[in-house]
Amino acid sequence: MSLRLTQPDENGGQPWQGLKPGQIYLQRRRRTMATLRGKLVVAQSGGPTAVFNSSACGVIQEALKHDDVFDGVYGASNGIMGVLHENMIDMRKESPESIEAMRRTPASTLGTCRRKLDKNDLERILDVCKAHDIRYFFYNGGNDSMDTANKVHKMAVDAGYEMRAFGIPKTIDNDLVETDHCPGFGSAARLMALATRDVGRDTESGALTTTPINIMEIMGRDAGWLTGATAIGRKDERDAPHLIYMPEVPLTIEKFLDDVKKVHDRLGFVIVALSEGVRDPEGNLLMKSSQLDAFGHTQLGGVGDFLAKTITDTLGIKSRTNIAGTIQRSLISMASPVDLEEAYQVGQMGIKYALEGKSGYMVSLVRESDDPYSCTTGLAPLDKVANLTKEVPREMINEAGNDVNETFLKYVTPLVGEIPPSYPRFKKHAIGQLLEAYQR
Amino acid sequence: MSLRLTQPDENGGQPWQGLKPGQIYLQRRRRTMATLRGKLVVAQSGGPTAVFNSSACGVIQEALKHDDVFDGVYGASNGIMGVLHENMIDMRKESPESIEAMRRTPASTLGTCRRKLDKNDLERILDVCKAHDIRYFFYNGGNDSMDTANKVHKMAVDAGYEMRAFGIPKTIDNDLVETDHCPGFGSAARLMALATRDVGRDTESGALTTTPINIMEIMGRDAGWLTGATAIGRKDERDAPHLIYMPEVPLTIEKFLDDVKKVHDRLGFVIVALSEGVRDPEGNLLMKSSQLDAFGHTQLGGVGDFLAKTITDTLGIKSRTNIAGTIQRSLISMASPVDLEEAYQVGQMGIKYALEGKSGYMVSLVRESDDPYSCTTGLAPLDKVANLTKEVPREMINEAGNDVNETFLKYVTPLVGEIPPSYPRFKKHAIGQLLEAYQR
Repeated sequence: MSLRLTQPDENGGQPWQGLKPGQIYLQRRRRTMATLRGKLVVAQSGGPTAVFNSSACGVIQEALKHDDVFDGVYGASNGIMGVLHENMIDMRKESPESIEAMRRTPASTLGTCRRKLDKNDLERILDVCKAHDIRYFFYNGGNDSMDTANKVHKMAVDAGYEMRAFGIPKTIDNDLVETDHCPGFGSAARLMALATRDVGRDTESGALTTTPINIMEIMGRDAGWLTGATAIGRKDERDAPHLIYMPEVPLTIEKFLDDVKKVHDRLGFVIVALSEGVRDPEGNLLMKSSQLDAFGHTQLGGVGDFLAKTITDTLGIKSRTNIAGTIQRSLISMASPVDLEEAYQVGQMGIKYALEGKSGYMVSLVRESDDPYSCTTGLAPLDKVANLTKEVPREMINEAGNDVNETFLKYVTPLVGEIPPSYPRFKKHAIGQLLEAYQR
Repeated sequence: MSLRLTQPDENGGQPWQGLKPGQIYLQRRRRTMATLRGKLVVAQSGGPTAVFNSSACGVIQEALKHDDVFDGVYGASNGIMGVLHENMIDMRKESPESIEAMRRTPASTLGTCRRKLDKNDLERILDVCKAHDIRYFFYNGGNDSMDTANKVHKMAVDAGYEMRAFGIPKTIDNDLVETDHCPGFGSAARLMALATRDVGRDTESGALTTTPINIMEIMGRDAGWLTGATAIGRKDERDAPHLIYMPEVPLTIEKFLDDVKKVHDRLGFVIVALSEGVRDPEGNLLMKSSQLDAFGHTQLGGVGDFLAKTITDTLGIKSRTNIAGTIQRSLISMASPVDLEEAYQVGQMGIKYALEGKSGYMVSLVRESDDPYSCTTGLAPLDKVANLTKEVPREMINEAGNDVNETFLKYVTPLVGEIPPSYPRFKKHAIGQLLEAYQR
């Protein structure tokens, strides 16, 4: 699917369309003062990111400014589990300093979970919300979490229980629909782009006598945004990565080996950026679809190790794999400043939209301009977001299916913050050779 | 073995003992002006580090200041291979900007290699040095590279060819003897300490419903310095890593599982910092010594994957492994400022010592004080350095052999640069529970 930018209430032609978030807020605030009093709960769900807490902090800090509306600001421990089990903490009793520190703390300070809600769970959630007079529900997460937020929203509507439910987006995979991009993605992209560029130099340095092929196995089982983003740091054809494989484009072992060999013949070394979810033309994970017998245990080592071994066995060239794993989503020292700030804003704006009386939306990011980059927030109906995956559109991938193109780079580049310039290479003015060639 | 700090000419009682590098240089320069004119070659060898080029840059920039001595400043392409094949580049013809850029470029700008010299190689090197009037030889690398530098030094002495040969230390493994520490180590330690701390928070966040055990597989086949350094960022017992295993202390699968279970029982999640070279009591690599049959191909996945699978199979707790691989030694965005500067200094001081007439030494780092940290350079005879490995002394490891102690931390902490403070945790003032416990 193609990228679709979301405007708040795009069908309604609301008067605040085209205004900045602050303007929207002020304008609406004048028209409809929020009157629903009650407690607010915020929860985090799914795999954390480096800026996950920045979003939760945005919700909490903004909510704490409005004690005329929020009788309590609760953080649920471990996502919806905390609501189900009434394990919630009172944010008013935490120090402002430790709440502020969330903006620079990786992972999930409240704790996260993975849980698909069933009917009993929803009844319990209603009971808990009623018992505690919870009237505002903020769920911070990815595709599955938007499903949870949506179910809670609908549960309240169906029960006639007045409550405002919001999804706050998060995922390094960047695969939520109805938003230009997702908080968490820019930071992971920054880390993996710089790591890939630097690993490229490392591999190039020693290609002559050590290991000339290095595969970066990158998170994103269904969408290749993060894998593609490793291309940001390139300046010339020697800069890594040289090949990019994403789940969106089917790949065969033969095609892969052919691509690798061509780059190796040309440059003498190869860096491959490989999505862990890369698939064959039948849609099966590449590793599973090929010689499993020769491979042994699929639990041990992913597709990167499998392909590295295939290269070594078939082409006779030493290969290795780097699997940064959960470092990709947690190393806050490498966070993108843009991402940190936007993550905070989607949380903060969630409160402002809730005070306007909205419910059943995910706060989205709406790009206004690429250069200079500018982005505002919008609202996407949870119904249109839950459980859907935004893949990289085919038109952002090169024709051969082994790299991204300029359209992709234009989209991704502003999200990662300023990237230090690539490293120069020497011109290599060779000295004259005075002796016979050495034959050993 | 214990740490031994090296003083220049410690047996000779030279008058410059106790002086700062600059003072040594000035004092000696007054007494013995360098008179050996000729060309200089610098080469880089072995696995790169983030600050490898900073050292080479120190040699080159300092050498370029002395054209009264150096008739040419050459960089050998791909280490000693460049000398053997006369593939050397003229550093005077490179722009000062691209030479200066080496200070912020990861890996090896000149290219590196792994090659153990034989008799024919040494004869060829002598021929090349004579043909080009190379009188200064700088070799930047680790244990094997110091052997190369030493052999070249002895070759020249034996042949009566006047030449000054130096080793410039480098290794993220920090396993060179006769130096307090090695350039490259501090930067890798900084990255892995911060990555481990952040992965700890990530794992803690989701331990309830996802993967509560995460193994960080860390470089260092023979020495555990880098693995131990992951302990730098801890503030309390929940901060990662909770267990540290290094090659210096034998480990059995039973002991490992017992340790992991105890931490899991106590905290509910576990981060293990694991050297790739961890060994059993017979001295075999842990993975090889155990059920290879149940494991299949040893080429695929290292000891981390093997132990993660063992945990899952035996304890029934989900486990995973992060293998940062060559990212550990190349991500210059995470470099330690201390390390970057010291790497430059060992290169620069090599030139100064060479101008004094020395040969056959590695430039060492000599710690003067822990707090405030201060370090100067010294000289270690290559004969005492080549091919030796400095392991972590047993007295820097805790009694149980599964963590480092305060002595280790005191040694390592100043080398990584300032580490941002650990992240606070909420006090978690629970709200009162109003309903019956939820049973699902």
